[in-house]
Amino acid sequence: MSGSESPLQTLRSCLARRPVGLVGLGLIGGSIGLDLKAQGISTVALVHRARTAERARQRGLADVISTDPAVLGEAGLVVLCLPLDRLLVPTPQLLSALPRQALVSDVGSVKGPVLDAWQAACSGRFIGGHPMAGTTAAGVDAGQVGLFQGRPWAVTTTETTSSADLALLEALVGVLGARVIHCTAQNHDRAVALVSHLPVLVSAALLDTVAGERDPLIRHLAESLASSGFADTTRVGGGNPRLGALMVSHNRQALRQALRHYRDSLDALEDMVQEERWDQLYIALQQTQTLRQQVVDLP
Amino acid sequence: MSGSESPLQTLRSCLARRPVGLVGLGLIGGSIGLDLKAQGISTVALVHRARTAERARQRGLADVISTDPAVLGEAGLVVLCLPLDRLLVPTPQLLSALPRQALVSDVGSVKGPVLDAWQAACSGRFIGGHPMAGTTAAGVDAGQVGLFQGRPWAVTTTETTSSADLALLEALVGVLGARVIHCTAQNHDRAVALVSHLPVLVSAALLDTVAGERDPLIRHLAESLASSGFADTTRVGGGNPRLGALMVSHNRQALRQALRHYRDSLDALEDMVQEERWDQLYIALQQTQTLRQQVVDLP
Repeated sequence: MSGSESPLQTLRSCLARRPVGLVGLGLIGGSIGLDLKAQGISTVALVHRARTAERARQRGLADVISTDPAVLGEAGLVVLCLPLDRLLVPTPQLLSALPRQALVSDVGSVKGPVLDAWQAACSGRFIGGHPMAGTTAAGVDAGQVGLFQGRPWAVTTTETTSSADLALLEALVGVLGARVIHCTAQNHDRAVALVSHLPVLVSAALLDTVAGERDPLIRHLAESLASSGFADTTRVGGGNPRLGALMVSHNRQALRQALRHYRDSLDALEDMVQEERWDQLYIALQQTQTLRQQVVDLP
Repeated sequence: MSGSESPLQTLRSCLARRPVGLVGLGLIGGSIGLDLKAQGISTVALVHRARTAERARQRGLADVISTDPAVLGEAGLVVLCLPLDRLLVPTPQLLSALPRQALVSDVGSVKGPVLDAWQAACSGRFIGGHPMAGTTAAGVDAGQVGLFQGRPWAVTTTETTSSADLALLEALVGVLGARVIHCTAQNHDRAVALVSHLPVLVSAALLDTVAGERDPLIRHLAESLASSGFADTTRVGGGNPRLGALMVSHNRQALRQALRHYRDSLDALEDMVQEERWDQLYIALQQTQTLRQQVVDLP
């Protein structure tokens, strides 16, 4: 490899004609499959149900799709695109089907517990990953072309990660158009506690506040007047409850700390309201406006 | 008027060839102007600055546009489309320019204080209004066609509102494609405290939590990994700080109550995390998912 190679050239040379294996063809797995197909990289995929396999074949999500774990046999890189609960409890069938020559990665939204579950099982050839791209869609019909374009993709290397394995995974992420963000699993989990898991609870509490309004007239009126601001603020709190509970429960330590800090921030704003310090509130909202402009750079 | 009349027919007959007067041609005033023009309703508009008048004429936001309050002289209906702070402190010039024959309405985001400021000044011919349609855009270039289409528009009648005045304002709202939601000013303010003003503080506190992260590595990583979920949850907390502080300060009583209830809801979720009651968290997130599907019905 040289610095002038494109990610696609690097991926091809690292794979040495072996296919990329995908375990699961939901939103993430299906989207990876479609993008790799468009770039001419061959793919094999393992799915749970025969019906899913049939639909995934109709959609052309991978070149070979099967419910038989043996389908992964020739893969040079296997990406586990499973829901978090299934990712954290690897089945013996899946473990024995992972080919020796393959680097294994995943796309789970917490990284410490995933590393614990997979690193030993893959004899150290496991690198955790987490694409920061989501829609509300799920299932075999959710995958879409270009989902990862311009999005961050956390890659959690460890002390034992080889540079060849890292180059392979980075090439995959590059081919999908995403930006690699290097971090440890622990730091990843602290960071997403702040920007991904805390927002779920903050947003869910807002929905619960409206649901808990005791005056039915006010509650009904509030629901009638809810506009795009409320819709945006409550999107993640009104999202998939199974995924939400899984993320929270598997990242509880970092999330508890984030909740404590959130409470301090809300207390400070509430004090300004109670004590009618409007100039200070204005300055605080100027600061949050500036911060959001720095952080959020979305299409 | 009969039930079979269209809002446009009703508006024409109520106005009896008088124009609609607009005070301010920002996002809301400009959008009303463009929609009325498209429907062939004549408009006159008062703006603050000569440069704004010039640009508004270029954009065709109203038929006659002036910095001279006398421009409103023939209007049959005047809609005050001013920022909340200017709306709450009517200038003597504006008050004396409001023609006796005109019904006056507004588009401010709190209704109790607006009613206090305007009802007596308009000899009872004032009906508060609040279109629930916003974008981040502001100023003379922000107005757009169809902004109100399908959106709720709160109309706060009082005991002294005449049916003729109400019919006129409802016809205007109908012509703009919005849905009239009747409520008292007090109930409006309690409802928007829940779905509009509380979200600003909840969302700002989330931004402040990230900004306050003491470990620079984690803070930087959190900013790098922030995705669409964080962007959505923080949109209103990162919005216009002047508008945010104004809304909060002028609706502080209802907001304080909303904050108390929000704290209870967040406490309950936090307890589930602390005590690892994951099944209960799952059920709570199922309920918020259902609630959001009921409330949010946006394009």
